[in-house]
Amino acid sequence: MIRLEEKTIKSETIFEGRVVRLQIDQVELPNGETSTREIVKHPGAVSVMAVTNENKLVLVRQFRKPLEKTILEIPAGKLESGEDPIDCAFRELEEETGYRAAEMQHVYSFYTSPGFADEYLHLYLAKGLTKGKNQPDQDEFVELVELTLEECLDKIAEGDICDAKTVAAVLLWQNRTLRGRSG
Amino acid sequence: MIRLEEKTIKSETIFEGRVVRLQIDQVELPNGETSTREIVKHPGAVSVMAVTNENKLVLVRQFRKPLEKTILEIPAGKLESGEDPIDCAFRELEEETGYRAAEMQHVYSFYTSPGFADEYLHLYLAKGLTKGKNQPDQDEFVELVELTLEECLDKIAEGDICDAKTVAAVLLWQNRTLRGRSG
Repeated sequence: MIRLEEKTIKSETIFEGRVVRLQIDQVELPNGETSTREIVKHPGAVSVMAVTNENKLVLVRQFRKPLEKTILEIPAGKLESGEDPIDCAFRELEEETGYRAAEMQHVYSFYTSPGFADEYLHLYLAKGLTKGKNQPDQDEFVELVELTLEECLDKIAEGDICDAKTVAAVLLWQNRTLRGRSG
Repeated sequence: MIRLEEKTIKSETIFEGRVVRLQIDQVELPNGETSTREIVKHPGAVSVMAVTNENKLVLVRQFRKPLEKTILEIPAGKLESGEDPIDCAFRELEEETGYRAAEMQHVYSFYTSPGFADEYLHLYLAKGLTKGKNQPDQDEFVELVELTLEECLDKIAEGDICDAKTVAAVLLWQNRTLRGRSG
């Protein structure tokens, strides 16, 4: 196996915010030369794939300032300091949608943008849903939307579902459905 | 439909780098209150799902400084200024893996981290592969790895495949395979 690692020569924090920290690292490359890396540090997050008894995926419509547009996503949220991802999954699902889950099953964890950020996202499958009232954060405004698999696939084709975690959840759901049909 | 949009009151650029720009926006929320949003601006990127004639997915092993580890990913890269995503897909596949594709088919485009970044990633399916010699960028060190679908699924379970675009590509591949099997 060839050497691929980069050695940190110097690390400088440019900005420390409520959500992200920006740091610039000077690195020694595997060939001995140097380069810089712009790195966004993030606390990590969870997202929840919740399918209702009517076989609909629970989504939220939310304005995303970085995109300057409103998009459809599965419920998700940042980890609070020291919070266990599974607790965060139960909490975010209930806060954003009002759905309480009897059980949370871990599906995948992945880095959303490994080229420039360390955000690590845990995807959970919620089971045994019961509906209550949603209570989003003070600065969070969301609208609940429930869609069938076919509607989700249409929304992907139309570009209304256009974020990585939601596309992954829909593919996974389609996958499970195909598996079910093919035996 | 309830009002979800946030209005920009003030936008300040904190850092402008080679890859990202960090900006802090002060916003007016739908309820009239104010908040701040930490936003990472990114030029956008492409990723390529390339399956060889031996029915193996073409991956690269690459050190990712934000994660401080080496992970397996499908070939990907940032868009150059004014570059058409499809040209970028042909270019990145060849630079990183040496594979030349006869055809590129657009599959999905998605935002990788809509909560804090505007990175928009285009996923392409490469067809008609022929093998040449790879030529990565000066500060890029990659190792070519080719895996079957079953090996990819094992790598996801082991956490060696752990980035969003690669998980999405593997799910899509599995999906197409299931569809093929079930007719």
